[in-house]
Amino acid sequence: MASDPVLTNPGLYRVVMENERVRVLEYRDAPGDRTAPHGHPDSVMVTLSSIRRRLVAGGQEAEVELDSGVVRWLASQEHSGENIGDSDTHAIFVELKEPARSVDSGPGQDRLGPSTR
Amino acid sequence: MASDPVLTNPGLYRVVMENERVRVLEYRDAPGDRTAPHGHPDSVMVTLSSIRRRLVAGGQEAEVELDSGVVRWLASQEHSGENIGDSDTHAIFVELKEPARSVDSGPGQDRLGPSTR
Repeated sequence: MASDPVLTNPGLYRVVMENERVRVLEYRDAPGDRTAPHGHPDSVMVTLSSIRRRLVAGGQEAEVELDSGVVRWLASQEHSGENIGDSDTHAIFVELKEPARSVDSGPGQDRLGPSTR
Repeated sequence: MASDPVLTNPGLYRVVMENERVRVLEYRDAPGDRTAPHGHPDSVMVTLSSIRRRLVAGGQEAEVELDSGVVRWLASQEHSGENIGDSDTHAIFVELKEPARSVDSGPGQDRLGPSTR
């Protein structure tokens, strides 16, 4: 089972809201900060700052660059990340607690990092 | 069936992301703007500005005041709203497309406006 980022990096991830259907995480880091390998369920990401980071999972690597106020889909995945920008990161992750209805949860499946749908 | 705010107020609400599991709306208005009566499914709200508004539904009225960067649960509901503050509103609504697993979707049920869980 994938590691919960709230447990692996409690200084970076914290739970800001939770009920039966969703758990919402706030993420904050500074340039150079790295996360331990961890898992995300299907989530919606909302950036509250601009973001520049490198994600790593298995043999894959992806660079992510987003403006503030942007919404992205993060299909269920495991990765670790690093702030490779020159400013602090602030983002919200809305985690869906219910399992996806179909096995293929869409085009974001098998994609490292956030996608536009 | 409740009216879709994207149809009733297309100048204020727009779809910024959609897949099988979620539809995400961006809301923007100016002081004095009002929405027509509309419905929200169970949603997570993330404010990208401070917000001050009055919500009305049936005989109920609620005033909502939130800072920027705040996360709230919006239990499935119908209402209309008005920006009663002196600044523009900017917010994101992550709508859950799947029906709730239980009939009672939690403490937010039957509450007008956003709640903390």
